[in-house]
Amino acid sequence: MSEASFFGDLLQTIAERGRRLLARGGEDEPGRRGDLRKLSEALLSNRGEASGIALAKAVLDRWTTASEAERRAFMTLLLERYGPDEKRLGAAVAAYSADPSARAAQALHAASESRRLELMRRLNLAPGGTSTLVRMRESLLDMKGDDPALSLVDDDFAHLFASWFNRGFLVLKPIDWASPANVLEKIIRYEAVHEIRDWGELRRRVEPADRRCYAFFHPTLVDEPLIFVEVALTTTMPASVDEVLDPARAPIRAEEANAAVFYSISNCQDGLRGVSFGNFLIKQVVEDLRRDLPDLSTFVTLSPVPGFAAWLARETADEASLWLTNEDRATLEPLAERGWMDDAEVAERLKPILPRLCAAYLLHGRDRRGGPADPVARFHLGNGARLERVNFMGDRSARAERQAHSMMVNYLYELDEIEANHEAFFARGEVAASSSVRRLAPKSRSLASAREVTPAK
Amino acid sequence: MSEASFFGDLLQTIAERGRRLLARGGEDEPGRRGDLRKLSEALLSNRGEASGIALAKAVLDRWTTASEAERRAFMTLLLERYGPDEKRLGAAVAAYSADPSARAAQALHAASESRRLELMRRLNLAPGGTSTLVRMRESLLDMKGDDPALSLVDDDFAHLFASWFNRGFLVLKPIDWASPANVLEKIIRYEAVHEIRDWGELRRRVEPADRRCYAFFHPTLVDEPLIFVEVALTTTMPASVDEVLDPARAPIRAEEANAAVFYSISNCQDGLRGVSFGNFLIKQVVEDLRRDLPDLSTFVTLSPVPGFAAWLARETADEASLWLTNEDRATLEPLAERGWMDDAEVAERLKPILPRLCAAYLLHGRDRRGGPADPVARFHLGNGARLERVNFMGDRSARAERQAHSMMVNYLYELDEIEANHEAFFARGEVAASSSVRRLAPKSRSLASAREVTPAK
Amino acid sequence: MSEASFFGDLLQTIAERGRRLLARGGEDEPGRRGDLRKLSEALLSNRGEASGIALAKAVLDRWTTASEAERRAFMTLLLERYGPDEKRLGAAVAAYSADPSARAAQALHAASESRRLELMRRLNLAPGGTSTLVRMRESLLDMKGDDPALSLVDDDFAHLFASWFNRGFLVLKPIDWASPANVLEKIIRYEAVHEIRDWGELRRRVEPADRRCYAFFHPTLVDEPLIFVEVALTTTMPASVDEVLDPARAPIRAEEANAAVFYSISNCQDGLRGVSFGNFLIKQVVEDLRRDLPDLSTFVTLSPVPGFAAWLARETADEASLWLTNEDRATLEPLAERGWMDDAEVAERLKPILPRLCAAYLLHGRDRRGGPADPVARFHLGNGARLERVNFMGDRSARAERQAHSMMVNYLYELDEIEANHEAFFARGEVAASSSVRRLAPKSRSLASAREVTPAK
Amino acid sequence: MSEASFFGDLLQTIAERGRRLLARGGEDEPGRRGDLRKLSEALLSNRGEASGIALAKAVLDRWTTASEAERRAFMTLLLERYGPDEKRLGAAVAAYSADPSARAAQALHAASESRRLELMRRLNLAPGGTSTLVRMRESLLDMKGDDPALSLVDDDFAHLFASWFNRGFLVLKPIDWASPANVLEKIIRYEAVHEIRDWGELRRRVEPADRRCYAFFHPTLVDEPLIFVEVALTTTMPASVDEVLDPARAPIRAEEANAAVFYSISNCQDGLRGVSFGNFLIKQVVEDLRRDLPDLSTFVTLSPVPGFAAWLARETADEASLWLTNEDRATLEPLAERGWMDDAEVAERLKPILPRLCAAYLLHGRDRRGGPADPVARFHLGNGARLERVNFMGDRSARAERQAHSMMVNYLYELDEIEANHEAFFARGEVAASSSVRRLAPKSRSLASAREVTPAK
Repeated sequence: MSEASFFGDLLQTIAERGRRLLARGGEDEPGRRGDLRKLSEALLSNRGEASGIALAKAVLDRWTTASEAERRAFMTLLLERYGPDEKRLGAAVAAYSADPSARAAQALHAASESRRLELMRRLNLAPGGTSTLVRMRESLLDMKGDDPALSLVDDDFAHLFASWFNRGFLVLKPIDWASPANVLEKIIRYEAVHEIRDWGELRRRVEPADRRCYAFFHPTLVDEPLIFVEVALTTTMPASVDEVLDPARAPIRAEEANAAVFYSISNCQDGLRGVSFGNFLIKQVVEDLRRDLPDLSTFVTLSPVPGFAAWLARETADEASLWLTNEDRATLEPLAERGWMDDAEVAERLKPILPRLCAAYLLHGRDRRGGPADPVARFHLGNGARLERVNFMGDRSARAERQAHSMMVNYLYELDEIEANHEAFFARGEVAASSSVRRLAPKSRSLASAREVTPAK
Repeated sequence: MSEASFFGDLLQTIAERGRRLLARGGEDEPGRRGDLRKLSEALLSNRGEASGIALAKAVLDRWTTASEAERRAFMTLLLERYGPDEKRLGAAVAAYSADPSARAAQALHAASESRRLELMRRLNLAPGGTSTLVRMRESLLDMKGDDPALSLVDDDFAHLFASWFNRGFLVLKPIDWASPANVLEKIIRYEAVHEIRDWGELRRRVEPADRRCYAFFHPTLVDEPLIFVEVALTTTMPASVDEVLDPARAPIRAEEANAAVFYSISNCQDGLRGVSFGNFLIKQVVEDLRRDLPDLSTFVTLSPVPGFAAWLARETADEASLWLTNEDRATLEPLAERGWMDDAEVAERLKPILPRLCAAYLLHGRDRRGGPADPVARFHLGNGARLERVNFMGDRSARAERQAHSMMVNYLYELDEIEANHEAFFARGEVAASSSVRRLAPKSRSLASAREVTPAK
Repeated sequence: MSEASFFGDLLQTIAERGRRLLARGGEDEPGRRGDLRKLSEALLSNRGEASGIALAKAVLDRWTTASEAERRAFMTLLLERYGPDEKRLGAAVAAYSADPSARAAQALHAASESRRLELMRRLNLAPGGTSTLVRMRESLLDMKGDDPALSLVDDDFAHLFASWFNRGFLVLKPIDWASPANVLEKIIRYEAVHEIRDWGELRRRVEPADRRCYAFFHPTLVDEPLIFVEVALTTTMPASVDEVLDPARAPIRAEEANAAVFYSISNCQDGLRGVSFGNFLIKQVVEDLRRDLPDLSTFVTLSPVPGFAAWLARETADEASLWLTNEDRATLEPLAERGWMDDAEVAERLKPILPRLCAAYLLHGRDRRGGPADPVARFHLGNGARLERVNFMGDRSARAERQAHSMMVNYLYELDEIEANHEAFFARGEVAASSSVRRLAPKSRSLASAREVTPAK
Repeated sequence: MSEASFFGDLLQTIAERGRRLLARGGEDEPGRRGDLRKLSEALLSNRGEASGIALAKAVLDRWTTASEAERRAFMTLLLERYGPDEKRLGAAVAAYSADPSARAAQALHAASESRRLELMRRLNLAPGGTSTLVRMRESLLDMKGDDPALSLVDDDFAHLFASWFNRGFLVLKPIDWASPANVLEKIIRYEAVHEIRDWGELRRRVEPADRRCYAFFHPTLVDEPLIFVEVALTTTMPASVDEVLDPARAPIRAEEANAAVFYSISNCQDGLRGVSFGNFLIKQVVEDLRRDLPDLSTFVTLSPVPGFAAWLARETADEASLWLTNEDRATLEPLAERGWMDDAEVAERLKPILPRLCAAYLLHGRDRRGGPADPVARFHLGNGARLERVNFMGDRSARAERQAHSMMVNYLYELDEIEANHEAFFARGEVAASSSVRRLAPKSRSLASAREVTPAK
């Protein structure tokens, strides 16, 4: 109904400016020769108010062409010289200690803010600033490995980005075969779950009537998806990635589908690590799909189980494991060799065991903080999804064989249960699971009793 | 060269969603009946992570329909119950006092952040959230008058908005007669300097070939300009608003102009008070105009002098005034009556005096903090502009007569001087002024000497 | 789903070019001084192939600034010198007469094409050409009154425009309060049925949730609607324009409506006279509304009856009228004076008579070609609509009083009947009407019999 | 300056509708089962006025799924049953013969119009109609080979398309790496001069700063370029395609270039054969490039010479050839074998001869109608370009070796000369050529004299 194009134009303006900037990358800009330290000081000074955009641009240009060593030096500078003003902070601490009023707390908050936060905000004045700041943090994350002290600087980036990339500022966009090539190219590059080998394969993922792809974008990150999800519209809940990605399959009409299968979710921006988008993405896509295709009733994932093989190795080695008998251990031996799937007999023997163990891993495996051991499980269960089914030989790729003995999982987003599941998960650590999965791997005690019987055999 | 329309589409999506939301205002939403306090607690809890968008929407919907008293109660709640966690803060203070390390300072910063900041960020998850938060602060600013304690809450809004409305996220858009009516309507409504009475007058401001209007927009504030400036393209630096706004004037072709006159700058969003846009707006518009019209050489304002009449009244009453003789006082007497301008003889007598006094006011009048007394002068001089000329009877409107005895001022944006002017202004309080203005009102000492002579007359 | 913005950009390009052109109107273009005749000859020559765009632009620029006399001379030139090549036509006639083959007929068609058609097509090469050609025909239509011979030229324009403005090339656009002011301005200007006095009234027509406005646009006619329709969403079929346009009415939510009322349809471009859009517009709008608001079940007009008063005057004067008794004539006498509506007693007496006569006029009044006498009836009945109800005092405006004794009519677009109604109308001259309207004005014979009885009273 | 996005939206609307249509291709539409003949008759009848869009859609849907035989039958139907109304035509011929007035000629033109033209115009009512009509003609062009009588039908298509695809309705769009993939895919598919093997190669053609690509689009042909040109920005006029397409070359900045090289022009729509776009495309691109890059001074092609090898074979066989001595014939013998280029000695011997012969071919070779024998030369010379240079071994591809013994040509678009060149070309058959090319192949007479001398050697 409404005339939205005026605002459509806004981002066009941003985008054009952004691209022009990038295109100018080759020019000999003054920033190239500037001194990052002096430029940064100037940017934080009064002069920065008069010439902020130019100075911010100079800093960022300089950074872009800086060597690895210069970049590390700049980050160290941020760490050491751009913390809070110590004198002012000391006074605020003293004041708060003397009178812990709300006002004193607020003053303390202001005094304890590091100067680099303000520097980062001023750097964002430059056209294309946000994008360069994200890339700057990318570098920083690499450096942090060697130099944990830099995590203080990283905290400030993380704090700022969480505010700037608030979901309220993101835009969901469908991606299809009419999307710009430079965006699609990034879908190819960032796909982290099921590799896209070439443009032909990309096309099969985004063009057929029963395929969808959605991404979150931020207005100032030109042509850069933040996260995207690939969706297959199907008539049944798929048990394997081959069902979904078979190049020879016949597409169905979108209206025929009753299930939407989220078979791949990939983050695109390393520099935004820790800012969570996935939860919002899935829920927004569910909402949009329901509006467009009211016949869809099932929203489900087809997900990898990246930690399963490692867990199983530990359990196998652990004689006290609750989940494995020695007989199981023998049956599992062929897993050690690549290509066991091609031996039908071996596969037949593993078929009753692997799903049970996978269910046990997902239901009962725990990480250090007491959450689910599997990162993908953590994500979907934390979103309020339900562990619906484990799929034997769901993914025959080398990676899936290595990480998960080719198991895959369906997590079901049952809309009416999401909130309760989420609540139970965070409040009481409960894993929502279908009764069939639950039956596969009964609670450890009953299993233990079962094992007591076993020796009697 | 580049294909910007993909991104153009992004904001369209935002805009459409935003407008749909507003359109739904009339529905009986659950939020209407909710309890702001419980909803807010839920939003900050774990549950908020699973159902954040819905809860945020419920809070904002509830706020939108809340009574004045409910709104005040909610703000008071934010003040009293959503400060920092005191226990955690106490611990952080103790830790810092024991060991004032950088890490302890960072922890202190985190611990001293009020919970309402996180609440505000989560409220922004709702579609249209940013816009409602801005209106929320508008209300808060009204309440602050009676209840200064609320300024703590206001500080948090201000802090957040300064980050969210960072210039890097703003988009400059030209406004013209092909702009959407709902945007133009706001230009009429928000014009704060030279009133726009109707659509015909608006059209004369934005349609002719020698008129320009530009506004900053933020991607999530649909159809809402943040600030705008009206520009006249002329062949000379105008001395009066009539020259610029005369409905009978013949427009010139843009290419014929050599001056761009900024004759009106208006902020649109009370809720963004304190977030400064004007400086960036003027500089960006100068840049854009230079690119489009390379023959433009002069960038100048035609500005009001809102504090002049009040200053002059004080000086007149002050027998020790350095700037007025008793003879002057006599000559100025007709100013007390409206319509003095119509008496040519009176005007003739005032003509040599008012400009001199106005120059004195602008050059030497000081506010409490030692800056220029005049707020418009503070703004332009702070931007690095130069006080170029004072104009007798520059604005014959009732308001200008009342506030400034109809004087107007041209501030010149001389691009090569802006940074130096800005620096001198902030570092040493120096006011950049043309020699002619300077000659009008020589430094107080020489004036004082002049006055010594006066009694001798 | 799909990414439409690439194509969205296309027209942007056209529009920008178009507006730039118009903006340049003031320049001293070479075309101003050219000779229309020489330029036209050049455009049709070989040279025209090399420099067609420039020459076309020169002709159109010259036309735009030409005097009335020059324009008439140019049209006369087109008539006299740009007919078909007579020699070639003579030969083609001879060939066809000798052998009336399909090929000879085709050759005859080619040879009989006037050279001005090709000239018009070449004029369209210029940017903005289509728009100027439409305005050229506007002028021509004025001239035709005095100079009927020019209708040959007009026939060529009409033929060309019917092809260029084929419905397949038109785009339906909703118009609302977020539409560009320069488009809305034209809605004000072109509204031909119920005058829009100012921007406030326009806003009440396009902004409320229960109002819609749609227009057809052609890609090359920048910012120029071709035809538009105003729609009210209501819960009942309205009987008067006041019900629809009452400024004090409370809007309903669109979802509450079950009827869409087309209360005003206006053509915008005189130069496109004879190219019919209205039929397509109504049907497309019905289709779009049904998709957006599935609860709408009634699509109906509220229409004027512009020929009723004139018909009634003739019938009144005609003693042999089948429709009026002398008693009726007496009752109708107050109609001669303006403001009869204010006399409740008079209105009461007219209430049973005027609707009956109006129904008679609409059902049985005939124009010269045997179609309905009323032009609005011709349009809607020709589209397949049904005459549903006649409304006493439906429009109290001076115009409606003068033209239609304030009667209004509802035509119902019953989707399942449209085709059959249309067929019956064109094949057998049948007027589709509701039984209640039909009862009001029974066929003339039975009426005649009724009258025979009357004297007996 | 102006706000173009409203119109940008228009085409978006078209595009979305168009794509939705195509997406529905798989549905079982009523059209599939209809009878093309009956549907067509209905569309031309009164009923067609009421239900035109639905009937047009039915015909086109039916056509889309028709078999080859059904399609041919439909075209034959159009030929045999949809000519002009013979009775009406006979009367019009008689009337014109009796009185050959302008009005009678116009009536004759109307009467001789075939009914299929009106049918085609009505088919265009359907959404996506234009696109299907273009594909319909594509089929027809194939059939015409076997069935020349169908050319009458084809003439009507050609006539209509020339009007509908008038340059005034086309939009020039730059194509780059941010263009939609479904458009870029067509660039790969339609590139007819220098094959684009994959997306990597495409990217090298459209992404670097010194590459441009432009296409004409028509508003109703969604995502379908009509014709496109690839441009290299260079510092010198290139002599070989390798210089231009070398994957290892280092791109320059656009601002450094002084030449724009049109190295590939491809038509995309077979169904639009005979509607000429190329001339307008080149000139528009030249205009746009000059505006964007004012330092460009040279606009030149790097073009194939597709007819040269065939001409040379004929000349070699023709003992009376004016252009070859027997010695030449001997030297040319190695051309018969593929790969002669790899033999440096052979190449060295051919180097002085091939360019001379190529120049002779281009300057003096004639087709049946007396124009240049080479089709590419015909195109560029007809546009007013100048034959600037012939390049030995300019294109080492197999096709170029086969068609042109690897020669390439530069045609120069010297803006000041274009019109004069065009005029001289069409009026007097003169070929514009640089003096160096002209020196290579002097006029036949002087050459003949030269040859007279030769035997004396």
